[in-house]
Amino acid sequence: MSKANLFYAQSGGVTSVINDSACGVIETARLHKDTIGKVYAGLNGILGALNEDLIDTSRETKKTIAALRSTPAGAFGSCRYKLKSYSDNQREYERLMEVFQAHNIRYFLYNGGGDSQDTANKVSQLSLEQGFPITCIGIPKTVDNDLPITDNCPGFGSVAKYVAVSIREAGLDVASMCASSTKVFVMEVMGRHAGWIAGAAGLSTEKEGDAPHIILFPEIAFNKDKFLKKVKRCVSRYGYCAIVVSEGVQYKNGKFLAEAGGKDAFGHVQLGGVAPFVANMIKDELGYKYHWAVADYLQRAARHIASATDVKQAYAVGKVAVELALKGKTAVMPIIIRGKGKKYTWRIGEVKLSDVANAEKVMPRDYITRDGLHITEKARAYFAPLIQGEDYPVYKQGIPQYARLKKVLEKKKLKKWHSA
Amino acid sequence: MSKANLFYAQSGGVTSVINDSACGVIETARLHKDTIGKVYAGLNGILGALNEDLIDTSRETKKTIAALRSTPAGAFGSCRYKLKSYSDNQREYERLMEVFQAHNIRYFLYNGGGDSQDTANKVSQLSLEQGFPITCIGIPKTVDNDLPITDNCPGFGSVAKYVAVSIREAGLDVASMCASSTKVFVMEVMGRHAGWIAGAAGLSTEKEGDAPHIILFPEIAFNKDKFLKKVKRCVSRYGYCAIVVSEGVQYKNGKFLAEAGGKDAFGHVQLGGVAPFVANMIKDELGYKYHWAVADYLQRAARHIASATDVKQAYAVGKVAVELALKGKTAVMPIIIRGKGKKYTWRIGEVKLSDVANAEKVMPRDYITRDGLHITEKARAYFAPLIQGEDYPVYKQGIPQYARLKKVLEKKKLKKWHSA
Repeated sequence: MSKANLFYAQSGGVTSVINDSACGVIETARLHKDTIGKVYAGLNGILGALNEDLIDTSRETKKTIAALRSTPAGAFGSCRYKLKSYSDNQREYERLMEVFQAHNIRYFLYNGGGDSQDTANKVSQLSLEQGFPITCIGIPKTVDNDLPITDNCPGFGSVAKYVAVSIREAGLDVASMCASSTKVFVMEVMGRHAGWIAGAAGLSTEKEGDAPHIILFPEIAFNKDKFLKKVKRCVSRYGYCAIVVSEGVQYKNGKFLAEAGGKDAFGHVQLGGVAPFVANMIKDELGYKYHWAVADYLQRAARHIASATDVKQAYAVGKVAVELALKGKTAVMPIIIRGKGKKYTWRIGEVKLSDVANAEKVMPRDYITRDGLHITEKARAYFAPLIQGEDYPVYKQGIPQYARLKKVLEKKKLKKWHSA
Repeated sequence: MSKANLFYAQSGGVTSVINDSACGVIETARLHKDTIGKVYAGLNGILGALNEDLIDTSRETKKTIAALRSTPAGAFGSCRYKLKSYSDNQREYERLMEVFQAHNIRYFLYNGGGDSQDTANKVSQLSLEQGFPITCIGIPKTVDNDLPITDNCPGFGSVAKYVAVSIREAGLDVASMCASSTKVFVMEVMGRHAGWIAGAAGLSTEKEGDAPHIILFPEIAFNKDKFLKKVKRCVSRYGYCAIVVSEGVQYKNGKFLAEAGGKDAFGHVQLGGVAPFVANMIKDELGYKYHWAVADYLQRAARHIASATDVKQAYAVGKVAVELALKGKTAVMPIIIRGKGKKYTWRIGEVKLSDVANAEKVMPRDYITRDGLHITEKARAYFAPLIQGEDYPVYKQGIPQYARLKKVLEKKKLKKWHSA
């Protein structure tokens, strides 16, 4: 294949290490200038392709690109925008093809979750049909850790570390206060359908009595009586009760404990506020003084406490994505494969996009204790390596210094795009 | 004065560095074994004295005491328990005297905020009247930074660093998402009457457009129209708006924006939930999609991101408290004095307890911009040095290792205490 350009886009909710993948893509592509011309990054994800807003990353210095390695969130902008099926919105796919052809883009690297892998897969198929074959490589990313096949998702290890560290620290705080004041602390974490993040907080429990005492998973139907009994038991045994609750925890009938109303672009209900809901329930029924926290974006943006393992893996999937493209592969995604030995090892493998598109992996039942309120040793063995190591950003004047990009846009060649 | 024992207690809401002060007290006292016998720490603060629950810190190893230096929250337990005035509850003061006499305690070091300094001052006066003089030294502590005279309070610098780092990171997250999704992010921070914590978040704004774009202070009456106008302007100018709101923000009539109801032991209204309140207000009036976070205990327990300056100062006030006691001073509190030079320097001074008891220092008006919605350069110059430096705890298996104390209680000599 003659020299062509590469288009990279970030998709969906961002993570503290998605820019590590971007860094891996750009730095690796720069090593192959004979094959890959420019690396364009979509301004605000796939919208950048539709709008022909192509950030010319060659205008960013080597130093700035290297700084992406320790910069959280989506440096080029991400988006919550899911392409419809080809039959429902042919125009969008045709527009992508137009933009890619106009800018000689033959490589499409899409960094996102299950929805995004589905889009990348469709673009791949369509490009073949249209006789302008585009190498489409997915790059895994999701704090929710819910992609199938891959051992874990880049982004997850760091949010896992954040929640484990946070509940350990807040747990000590409540322990200090409980004799005369706060007895219950509820921390809400992300995880709409999968309790991976909530589960990882369980790593903080190293000894009997360590916080968190209770974890509420979306996978386990909420049982109020059982829950309140355990809260009471914890308070009488340890003096306090520290609880981690997944935003997606629901009743047996599938109703979320606290629905904030509203739906996002993917039709997901917008959640939030289950922590105050649970805290108030405890107050009403048991009378304990409570505090609650909702970490929200803080947890997935917390580059300052990123897992060094996660940082390395996020970079690796970006790097390998380019290498797979150069090997002529398409419609695949790099995955993380865990070694079988006792000592944690990992390597990058690959999987067909069609196998990961639109699938969701929840916590196995045997990762959750029998009572449904904590994690098992098996889960601990799975989670522990993913939060290993600290990878601190550079600080100046006490504040982390994150990459500031110029984001110079390539000159447009096409007419303005009007979405349907 | 012949050899006597020392009683140290932690009071009120804990911080990520109050144990640094404890470490300073214990390590310094251990250097003066000719004068100071045992260092007792109150189990759960002053309640430990009333209940004769005296933790014998000599039973903790040198290594454990050193580990207090990087352990958040109150390692010996704190409490929200304010002694009434002597005339209202003579029994409590008499009980303290009894316990102190029974255990030959001649030094009382009380680590807390304004309320606690008041208590320490009263104990000092009473001990003189009763002919069993006790050296009473206050040790400043409060994340709220609202003690008078001292340049700043140990505990504040670390929470300041946490909020500045957090809003910088979450701000980048929102910036990534705003083209097609979340446009407004609201982070609630502590600060009932004083906006120091909220103000410190303003350090994250280094360049035009950096988060936070708006800060809501308790010192400035909330003006809905003005606020919403600025939110709208930020979204149109930067694509998004990141807001830091102090839990104590209130209307002109003094009513808190969101009262959770309930009062604590000091008669303070228990606040919480102003972030969702403000976020919903924006959604209702301007229609923007929002996210919100309530950091709550996470912010004041976050030892993993403590300010190195704060850590040093917290240790220093503990150390100097013991040194003041050894010099025969009483009814005083070490304070932090800022040097006058351009380069930040600090030293420890002292102040009479009567001058700090029950006083509260709010943000000066000239620390807040004219529109009341951000901080001035003057504030920035004040805040910046306080968050300098990182002081990371030791990690094992990806999680910070914090001191685990034995907390061996001294044998009781008195009858059981029954509070009134």
